[in-house]
Amino acid sequence: MTLDATLARIDAGLPAAIERLLELLRIPSISTDPAYAAECDRAADWLVADLNALGIEAEKRKTPKHPMVVGHVPGDGPHILFYGHYDVQPVDPLTLWDRDPFDPAIEDTAKGKVIRGRGSSDDKGQLMTFVEACRAWKEVHGTLPCRITFFFEGEEESGSPSLVPFLEANKDELKADIALICDTGLFESRVPAIMTQLRGLCGEEIILTGPDKDLHSGMYGGAAINPARVLTRILGNLFDDTGRIQIPHFYDGVPDLPEDIAAQWQALNFDHGSFLGDVGLSTPAGEQGRTPLEMLWSQPTAEINGIIGGYTGDGFKTVLPSQASAKVSFRLVGSQDPHAIRKNFRAWVEAQLPDDIKVSYVEHGASPASQMATDHPAFEQARAALGAEWGHEAAFTGCGGSIPVAGYFKSILGMDTMLVGWAKDDDQIHSPNEKYDVESFHKGIRSWARILDAIR
Amino acid sequence: MTLDATLARIDAGLPAAIERLLELLRIPSISTDPAYAAECDRAADWLVADLNALGIEAEKRKTPKHPMVVGHVPGDGPHILFYGHYDVQPVDPLTLWDRDPFDPAIEDTAKGKVIRGRGSSDDKGQLMTFVEACRAWKEVHGTLPCRITFFFEGEEESGSPSLVPFLEANKDELKADIALICDTGLFESRVPAIMTQLRGLCGEEIILTGPDKDLHSGMYGGAAINPARVLTRILGNLFDDTGRIQIPHFYDGVPDLPEDIAAQWQALNFDHGSFLGDVGLSTPAGEQGRTPLEMLWSQPTAEINGIIGGYTGDGFKTVLPSQASAKVSFRLVGSQDPHAIRKNFRAWVEAQLPDDIKVSYVEHGASPASQMATDHPAFEQARAALGAEWGHEAAFTGCGGSIPVAGYFKSILGMDTMLVGWAKDDDQIHSPNEKYDVESFHKGIRSWARILDAIR
Repeated sequence: MTLDATLARIDAGLPAAIERLLELLRIPSISTDPAYAAECDRAADWLVADLNALGIEAEKRKTPKHPMVVGHVPGDGPHILFYGHYDVQPVDPLTLWDRDPFDPAIEDTAKGKVIRGRGSSDDKGQLMTFVEACRAWKEVHGTLPCRITFFFEGEEESGSPSLVPFLEANKDELKADIALICDTGLFESRVPAIMTQLRGLCGEEIILTGPDKDLHSGMYGGAAINPARVLTRILGNLFDDTGRIQIPHFYDGVPDLPEDIAAQWQALNFDHGSFLGDVGLSTPAGEQGRTPLEMLWSQPTAEINGIIGGYTGDGFKTVLPSQASAKVSFRLVGSQDPHAIRKNFRAWVEAQLPDDIKVSYVEHGASPASQMATDHPAFEQARAALGAEWGHEAAFTGCGGSIPVAGYFKSILGMDTMLVGWAKDDDQIHSPNEKYDVESFHKGIRSWARILDAIR
Repeated sequence: MTLDATLARIDAGLPAAIERLLELLRIPSISTDPAYAAECDRAADWLVADLNALGIEAEKRKTPKHPMVVGHVPGDGPHILFYGHYDVQPVDPLTLWDRDPFDPAIEDTAKGKVIRGRGSSDDKGQLMTFVEACRAWKEVHGTLPCRITFFFEGEEESGSPSLVPFLEANKDELKADIALICDTGLFESRVPAIMTQLRGLCGEEIILTGPDKDLHSGMYGGAAINPARVLTRILGNLFDDTGRIQIPHFYDGVPDLPEDIAAQWQALNFDHGSFLGDVGLSTPAGEQGRTPLEMLWSQPTAEINGIIGGYTGDGFKTVLPSQASAKVSFRLVGSQDPHAIRKNFRAWVEAQLPDDIKVSYVEHGASPASQMATDHPAFEQARAALGAEWGHEAAFTGCGGSIPVAGYFKSILGMDTMLVGWAKDDDQIHSPNEKYDVESFHKGIRSWARILDAIR
């Protein structure tokens, strides 16, 4: 019956928990803008103080940019590391906000009460659901349920430049049995979800140069090679008619989807029609025979994220450009190797280059996909706990995007990660008027209490 | 022997002729910039006054933008219309000029004396070669050699918006037996050339729209269609492996090159190696089995003049763009119909569009190729006259670009045009430090005297 006591304590303490979150939200810890460096520091101090108030030994740890916060709670049972980030996205354009993004408030909306303000969902509100669960647990039990390491980052919204060096330098201190990250959401805003596979990413810029200056297409057109023609020709060959990517060995390491996962995804009844319809589309554009959800969560991609060459202003200029370039990215799954993908892509490009076209590249990141080993018992325990809280069976889901920290926990600390969170699709993270449902905050805290109870 | 007298008069009057040109060059008649409208007007006034000083009835004629100058000389023999333009290109970036572009001067260079200043070559210097030839002729003979209409435009460097309406409205007044235009150059800066074929142009912008907003490639990549992928796929099909353009009926109306013209071109010994080498290239990029000169002067093209879509700034953004677009132009020859080309291009694009991609277009001009009917005796007469002046047999050449006015003279006034000029490849027209060789100016005036003598 101690879980019930903890849950009751959470319910009773909700107003105070919200007040604490509002306090944290008032600190404009925008990590990408150097003007807010002191505010990032202040947010880290606030978290250290809050953990200390809980009786947790915690401290701010310097990095070349914004500090990490690390706290330790000794204990028996599994050792878990909890990760969240206290930095937030910039707020411009300010004119699109209905209130000061750093003067947060509870608002009544047609869909219920929300906490409005920058960082309310991403990630201060989510981070605090775990801290508040620990607080309630401590108040009821006098101790925490197991050995816990708290690890808060302040650079997640600005590319995490200090993360890898910090993990490398503090391996022994940070390695736990499993990591918990609260920076994701409910599936379609209603189904509790544990993300167990995230796609990796390989970003590449390709720059083709032909003539050594822009030429007049009347003077040279037809006789001189046009790099925009070559670029479209090469990139036009990226896919065959069935949507398969044509780079040799591209699919090496792409696994079949396990049957149990496929069945779970099927049971989610993903609304493919409105997924595409919401952005003005109607026809899935992936490989023949695969659903959009399968394409998003379990298949790799090649996308042209940007392309430019020649005259692109108003009107017309009969220029034969000297250069044309494209930014191309590959989302990766399974054991696809981002470095091999890059190498094979370049070889494939070069095999198609005509005389007189030179190519250069700019690397834009490489991270492998993350596939969680869900055989750690915490996964099934958490799934059951989530089902009890949300009244809907929880699912192991995939993610089309990348959460690099999960990959680093695996590659540097040898630790699997359980990604779970309470954000909703309409939280407007990274956008004006970000909000976090009071329901997400409240049931999120309760969910963590249930998970801690299940896995301790 | 009167020709010799005229030529001697030209030689003796050269310093005064240069002074007059410098006066005209000091007027900054930049037609595209409304701030210089009064200066365009002043240049037109200067020309009217100069023609009047020659005893020619001339006047400034209003248009919605910059005035035309029209002058008439009655006379016997063939009626010729001479066309030139008094407006000039903008001068930015000013910092790249070695002197004030509108404070012209004679400079000594390693290659001889040049007249340095904006418009010295394009087209004030060239225009004045004809006026000066007329002046010398008049001074020697007391009259001009035949019936002449002078027609100077002030909008050539800004798209000639008033030209077609003006020609339409003044057909009877402007129609002559043949038009002479002095706005071209010597072949490879040494061989006198009469341009008898110019390519036409069809400019088209194609805009593909997929999703109704930019999407996150992690959230949608693989499931949602990417218009940049579709655009590269379509444009990548523009050419087959031998360089042939794949739009249906594209080559309808492309004539075989007449044998006599092919022989003349062969005799020009065009230096294909340095033509490409000068811009950092080595391999002709045209159709297999055709020389660069043949591709430039007698074959049509399809060129991507500009392409853009998605994120093109520094760094990387994993966006799946809502739109991608390209500016494409076709250089046309023979009787290729620009309107049919546009229609067939659009049909070809649309046949390749997948579901969910919408296309829109922006028209950017359509003009057919100009093929001069060189059977008018003036052509062979001028060729002989030019050979006598320059010590090198003159050639009927082609031009890869378009000179729309020649096409309008044909389509609106039913009049063929003889394009001849004295510019050199290194005149830097449209660029900083534009110049015109004193030799071009001097021998250009002499050339017109010889041509007038031959065709009167």
